[in-house]
Amino acid sequence: MEWQARLQEYLAPRVVLVNRALEAYLAYDQPLPRQLPEAMRYAALGAGKRLRPILCIAAAEALGGNAERVLPTACALELIHAFSLVHDDLPAMDNDRLRRGQPTVWVKYGEAMAILAGDALFAKAFELIARQADFSPAEHVVAVLHLIADATGLQGMCGGQAEDILSEGETVSAEQLRAIHTRKTGALIRASVLSGALLAGATPHQLSALDAYSRALGLAFQITDDILNETATPEQLGKPVGSDRARRKATYTALFGIETARAHARQAYQEALSALCDFDQRAEPLRWLAAYAVERTH
Amino acid sequence: MEWQARLQEYLAPRVVLVNRALEAYLAYDQPLPRQLPEAMRYAALGAGKRLRPILCIAAAEALGGNAERVLPTACALELIHAFSLVHDDLPAMDNDRLRRGQPTVWVKYGEAMAILAGDALFAKAFELIARQADFSPAEHVVAVLHLIADATGLQGMCGGQAEDILSEGETVSAEQLRAIHTRKTGALIRASVLSGALLAGATPHQLSALDAYSRALGLAFQITDDILNETATPEQLGKPVGSDRARRKATYTALFGIETARAHARQAYQEALSALCDFDQRAEPLRWLAAYAVERTH
Repeated sequence: MEWQARLQEYLAPRVVLVNRALEAYLAYDQPLPRQLPEAMRYAALGAGKRLRPILCIAAAEALGGNAERVLPTACALELIHAFSLVHDDLPAMDNDRLRRGQPTVWVKYGEAMAILAGDALFAKAFELIARQADFSPAEHVVAVLHLIADATGLQGMCGGQAEDILSEGETVSAEQLRAIHTRKTGALIRASVLSGALLAGATPHQLSALDAYSRALGLAFQITDDILNETATPEQLGKPVGSDRARRKATYTALFGIETARAHARQAYQEALSALCDFDQRAEPLRWLAAYAVERTH
Repeated sequence: MEWQARLQEYLAPRVVLVNRALEAYLAYDQPLPRQLPEAMRYAALGAGKRLRPILCIAAAEALGGNAERVLPTACALELIHAFSLVHDDLPAMDNDRLRRGQPTVWVKYGEAMAILAGDALFAKAFELIARQADFSPAEHVVAVLHLIADATGLQGMCGGQAEDILSEGETVSAEQLRAIHTRKTGALIRASVLSGALLAGATPHQLSALDAYSRALGLAFQITDDILNETATPEQLGKPVGSDRARRKATYTALFGIETARAHARQAYQEALSALCDFDQRAEPLRWLAAYAVERTH
């Protein structure tokens, strides 16, 4: 059986688990406030790979941990991802009207509700991190909180998005591009892997190896995203092809061309595998996910 | 000496302590990202009463706790307040161009940076809650995290702001108005008092009394805000007088008239005092703060 099939077999029950938990965490039965809970559900429960929760779960399982016992944190990571997409799509930011082929939150609910839905998803994520204490020692929860808060703030996701916007139309060096994406998407991917590992009781040596793995993985994902933005069909992307180029965004393909970008992605894949050399077969899903990062078609 | 003078004497050193800590937490020396750290500092370090940090400190001190040992959480509460103001001022929300007599963040840095500065302040707040573990048991930190995340999300600040916006121009009952403000401003005031109390090792009985105190206090503050929006000078407000009325916002003064609103504020003050009847003289600052809530002129 090829790795693709084994990865699908690994993912299917875990994506169900995550989606069921997200549905439960975002259920509501109160009449007030209006609109906001629907907008939050629309933003978080639609189609999506659930990559960050899966990375959290796969890292925990690689160390003998259990998927169900990291679900609050896994879902928190997905809500943070959803929050960032809602705000990034706003007219003042990337001004995107479509995501995964559907109207974005601000198109459907208006800008005010989109800003607030993002904020409330972010708050909900931290509530879920607190709920991780149902399964984990409080010390582990605080470590995860610190990790995830750092990954989302000034030196993480928000800072990366700020630099990405400010550098539109500028000439950006390879180093600057790397710095943008390390923050904008890499930091949360890293926090996803490391939080799962922390909750499973990782040793410092294991954390350091998974740190290297997650950095290489984040890079592989980002380079491949940039390539797909140029080469995929609109149906595969769920949005127009070449939108980054049209917006004069700094991308790996703009900087290196598609072929060199592909070589960089393969190199990142090899680095991700090397980082896992001391891990046993329980880390196979992390290896398949690295392969998926560079081989996917959407 | 009157309570006003004793309150000033209480506040002065503590506001200095909070401002110094905020300055240190928001210091930056990295070249990237651009603009965002300045926008965050502009939003959080300007003039302001530091009411929420002070409430956290005063509640801790009322139970024998120490101001310096609750500073990370106290500052987190101020950053959350600052984040909410930055987003509330956005054109898609309240569209305010002035706050405390200064241009609002989106006027000064643009909408994209204002959205991101708010998000990054929110993230920083949760980083500071994690740092509270330098002084407090991890179990206390997790309890504070849960309390503050709940107070800011769907059933707290974000939900209240959503309802406030959706009800503009609608006829709102006293019950609905109370429900809006309990979420929009009351929840974070309550979390400020209770987090300080939790970190000082409050008993369930003490928490329950401070819960009642903080709810009455939040109401007293909100009613007085509504009255001042009608009766203060533009210099006192730092923004145009009657802006809520112009926007057809639901307010206590619109619903009850100024005199009845004043009576309600005084009643809330009495309830706040009653809630503290089992507390000794260390709770005096909490009593003065309740007096200040209804007696202030800006």
